[in-house]
Amino acid sequence: MALSARNNLSGTIRSVTMDEVMAEVVIELDGGETVTSTITRGSADRLDLAEGDEVSAVIKASEVMVNKD
Amino acid sequence: MALSARNNLSGTIRSVTMDEVMAEVVIELDGGETVTSTITRGSADRLDLAEGDEVSAVIKASEVMVNKD
Amino acid sequence: MALSARNNLSGTIRSVTMDEVMAEVVIELDGGETVTSTITRGSADRLDLAEGDEVSAVIKASEVMVNKD
Amino acid sequence: MALSARNNLSGTIRSVTMDEVMAEVVIELDGGETVTSTITRGSADRLDLAEGDEVSAVIKASEVMVNKD
Amino acid sequence: MALSARNNLSGTIRSVTMDEVMAEVVIELDGGETVTSTITRGSADRLDLAEGDEVSAVIKASEVMVNKD
Amino acid sequence: MALSARNNLSGTIRSVTMDEVMAEVVIELDGGETVTSTITRGSADRLDLAEGDEVSAVIKASEVMVNKD
Repeated sequence: MALSARNNLSGTIRSVTMDEVMAEVVIELDGGETVTSTITRGSADRLDLAEGDEVSAVIKASEVMVNKD
Repeated sequence: MALSARNNLSGTIRSVTMDEVMAEVVIELDGGETVTSTITRGSADRLDLAEGDEVSAVIKASEVMVNKD
Repeated sequence: MALSARNNLSGTIRSVTMDEVMAEVVIELDGGETVTSTITRGSADRLDLAEGDEVSAVIKASEVMVNKD
Repeated sequence: MALSARNNLSGTIRSVTMDEVMAEVVIELDGGETVTSTITRGSADRLDLAEGDEVSAVIKASEVMVNKD
Repeated sequence: MALSARNNLSGTIRSVTMDEVMAEVVIELDGGETVTSTITRGSADRLDLAEGDEVSAVIKASEVMVNKD
Repeated sequence: MALSARNNLSGTIRSVTMDEVMAEVVIELDGGETVTSTITRGSADRLDLAEGDEVSAVIKASEVMVNKD
C-alpha cells in the first residue's frame, strides 16, 4: 500500500451495523483478535461492506496508545 | 479494562525510538502482525517502555479505517 | 493508569444520548468545565454509563489543539 | 467560538518543549488539572506560544474516551 | 485564526445529514474538491449549519495521511 | 481508492522536514490551498517522499471540524 498509515491489519468482517450517518464494522483479524471501526455510512455503502468480506483495518500510528499493566 | 476504547491488542514491544518530544513504539502482536504507535516521549518515560515489555495497543474505534481491495 | 494517553480529567456524567451506533456522553469535570465525548453505543453499554457516574475523560496528547486569542 | 469542536478548556501554558517537527505544550486548566498537547513546531512558532500565555485546549468530541473504574 | 490546527480549507456547505447523535457535513472547497466531516449533531445545531453556508474545514496536521501511487 | 477514508485531496509536495521520529509534509493542493501533514519518519522514508512528488492528502471524516464565522 502506498498510504503513509503504518498499520494495516488483515481480517474478515464479522458484522456491519448502520445508522443514518455512521456505521460500525467489526473485523476479526487473521491472528484471532477483534477490531471495531466506526466509519461513515456513506463509506460503508460505497465499499459495499458486508459480513464475510476480506478487508484490512488501517490505523495511523499517531492514533495508537500503549497500555502496560 | 474500564476504558471506552474498543480495541485492545496484546503484544510485545520490539523497539522504542525517541526524539526530544515524540517516541515511536513498535509492537509485535500475539497474532504475529506488527503495530506502530507514536506517543509522547514523556509517556514512554513514565511507563518505562522498553524492548520485550508485554503491552497492548489501544485504539479508539473512530480512528480505524477499513480497506477493501 | 498504565495507559500512554497523557490526559485524564475526572468528573461526573451529566447525560448519555444514544443512537444505534454512537453515544454522546457529557461529563462535568471536577474543576467545573464540561467535556463532551462521542464513543460507540457498544462501549457505553459495556461500561453501563449513566448520569451520575464518576468517570474520567481520557485524551491522547496528539488530539489536543491550542487556541490563543 | 464558531468552531464545531465541542471542548474548549481555558488555562495557562506551563511549558513548551520543541523538536525540529513537533512541540509539546503543557497547559494548567483554570480548574487545576493539567492537559498536554502535541502540535507542530510550526504552529507553536506561528502562535508564539510561551509559558504564562492564556490559552485554551480545544478537543473534538470524537477524540475523547471515557474511563470508568 | 488563533488555533494551532494547521489546515483551514474554505468552502461552501452542500449538504447536512443528521442522526440523533452525529451529523455529516459535505463541504465543496473553493478549489473544487469535496470534503466530508462528521461532527456531533449538537455542534451542527449550535452553528446552525445549512446548505449554502460559507465555512471552512479545519484539520489538525496529525490527522492527515499521505498517499503516493 | 478502496479505503473508507472519505477525503482524498490531490496535490504536490512542497517540502518534507524530518526529525528522528516524525516528518512534516507540506502539500499544495491542485486547487491552490496548502495542507500540512505529520507522519512518522518511517513512513516518509518508506514512501520516499520528496519535493515535487504527486500525492494526495487522505483524511478520515471524523477528523474534520467545521468553522463558521
